[in-house]
Amino acid sequence: MTDLLKTLNRPALEALGIEGFSYGYGDRVRFGELDALNHVNNAVYLRWFENIRVSYVQDYGLTSYGAPDDPQLVVRRVTADYFAPVLQNAVYVVTARTTLVKPSSFIMEYGLFVDGRCMASGEAVGVSLSADGSARQNHRPDAVRAMVERDGAKTEGFDPSGH
Amino acid sequence: MTDLLKTLNRPALEALGIEGFSYGYGDRVRFGELDALNHVNNAVYLRWFENIRVSYVQDYGLTSYGAPDDPQLVVRRVTADYFAPVLQNAVYVVTARTTLVKPSSFIMEYGLFVDGRCMASGEAVGVSLSADGSARQNHRPDAVRAMVERDGAKTEGFDPSGH
Amino acid sequence: MTDLLKTLNRPALEALGIEGFSYGYGDRVRFGELDALNHVNNAVYLRWFENIRVSYVQDYGLTSYGAPDDPQLVVRRVTADYFAPVLQNAVYVVTARTTLVKPSSFIMEYGLFVDGRCMASGEAVGVSLSADGSARQNHRPDAVRAMVERDGAKTEGFDPSGH
Amino acid sequence: MTDLLKTLNRPALEALGIEGFSYGYGDRVRFGELDALNHVNNAVYLRWFENIRVSYVQDYGLTSYGAPDDPQLVVRRVTADYFAPVLQNAVYVVTARTTLVKPSSFIMEYGLFVDGRCMASGEAVGVSLSADGSARQNHRPDAVRAMVERDGAKTEGFDPSGH
Repeated sequence: MTDLLKTLNRPALEALGIEGFSYGYGDRVRFGELDALNHVNNAVYLRWFENIRVSYVQDYGLTSYGAPDDPQLVVRRVTADYFAPVLQNAVYVVTARTTLVKPSSFIMEYGLFVDGRCMASGEAVGVSLSADGSARQNHRPDAVRAMVERDGAKTEGFDPSGH
Repeated sequence: MTDLLKTLNRPALEALGIEGFSYGYGDRVRFGELDALNHVNNAVYLRWFENIRVSYVQDYGLTSYGAPDDPQLVVRRVTADYFAPVLQNAVYVVTARTTLVKPSSFIMEYGLFVDGRCMASGEAVGVSLSADGSARQNHRPDAVRAMVERDGAKTEGFDPSGH
Repeated sequence: MTDLLKTLNRPALEALGIEGFSYGYGDRVRFGELDALNHVNNAVYLRWFENIRVSYVQDYGLTSYGAPDDPQLVVRRVTADYFAPVLQNAVYVVTARTTLVKPSSFIMEYGLFVDGRCMASGEAVGVSLSADGSARQNHRPDAVRAMVERDGAKTEGFDPSGH
Repeated sequence: MTDLLKTLNRPALEALGIEGFSYGYGDRVRFGELDALNHVNNAVYLRWFENIRVSYVQDYGLTSYGAPDDPQLVVRRVTADYFAPVLQNAVYVVTARTTLVKPSSFIMEYGLFVDGRCMASGEAVGVSLSADGSARQNHRPDAVRAMVERDGAKTEGFDPSGH
């Protein structure tokens, strides 16, 4: 049943007119996401960026939200820029990519597209902590590699090749 | 792009082990739909039932949420029964059907399935008003026909064949 | 600072024209609770009833949501009946009372009032489980006593006086 | 009944240990605002900042969300910075102030305090449009005066004294 909801990779996104992202998914605006101004409420975009962030960090191997030694990922900052309103029943694609990786933190960017047009963008700063939240914990090497190879993320403060 | 999000008809639902419904769609639990008990929050199911209700009434022709002479559909009552918790990342199917149609009201039922198992159900009583909300307004004949033919809805208080 | 947000007892509710409840609190409709129809979204009422339910069960001693031996309270069913729309900026009072207590379950009723007028009501069926959720667990005697004395709840299937 | 929910002015905020703001209100964390990590969900803070923004713009006279000639206020950008998690049942104060006013736009700052400690802050960039949304519209002089006098907002690009 999982084929009901598949993530979109770089070629699939490019086919939809969306460049520069390797990770996304499509969805439709729900009635309850509209506000009294009859377009998608500003805070809802942050929910969408959170949705894709949670999928992304599992998919890229930053954490699994389940294993006992999973790092705890904490969001320090979010932003959203609104370019055009999104309306009822709109089918949209939300995308995510990491732009910068440091040993135990990262910066992600989000895009929100309708018919290939960018309606909003966002950013988040995330930090990786130990499972009990008491200290910073370095990212898993596989996750760093995925962020560099799939997204073209820059690295800072460490050598991602492990040398 | 609309094929990213298609509704499920009776054969598609039956292939997923869901009997008795002609209208549904699949989705995945979002992080923000969980609560502190680590399963889907009770109020979220009502959102899901609302989502499919809004799609259904447009698809079956009860209203279009757009034309100036559209009837205004008002919900008088909702219920939800919870049989088993739904967890993070679960892929679910939500279904809807009308069980009873009266001239200007209707009763709908909802189902929430994970791996073909019913985790929750619900009901809603809806009323059709004139566009300005001042009086009851009879359903459109095509919508009644769709509810009877697609869902097997019973009718009460009128002859849906128009005789 | 806790006096910023005090619960309303029976005399305070009666002074607001609300009879038959011993537990409530006042709040104001938030912008994000409105939907595209420009009144409070149907699913939001279930959030309000959940809010007061969670406060109530802590206040009446059913659980503390914190101690290791706390029973786990599970909701089996909710309903909401809508009598009149609630609009932006409305100041409302939401109320709760238990009407029936069985050894390990209960039925609660909710009211939603604006200017002393009941705009919506609701009901919930709750069940008390052991901390690990594996079995039914009887309510604490103090909680039963509070439900009977403060709300006039009926009891069924046990003698609340403990004899 | 309106005294159930009063806004907090500068002296009231200072009495709670909050400096530099003239506008705030107190509230309590609701169960449904927690997420699976058992603290307030990141996106919820944006709801809180939206709540106080909507109250603020009405209170300061930027718009009334009701009169036909009301300017339409549009949010172009929001940010949130998270300093410490906020937990179940926490009583918090959310505050707002305008820091910069231009003829038809403004920058607001938000604070989120628990026991006088700042747990999160935020910013929003807002733009004032004509009622039909077709063009920029200058702020009302009274609203500019209130932002300057009550909040100490700086002005840029115009003379707020009207000379």
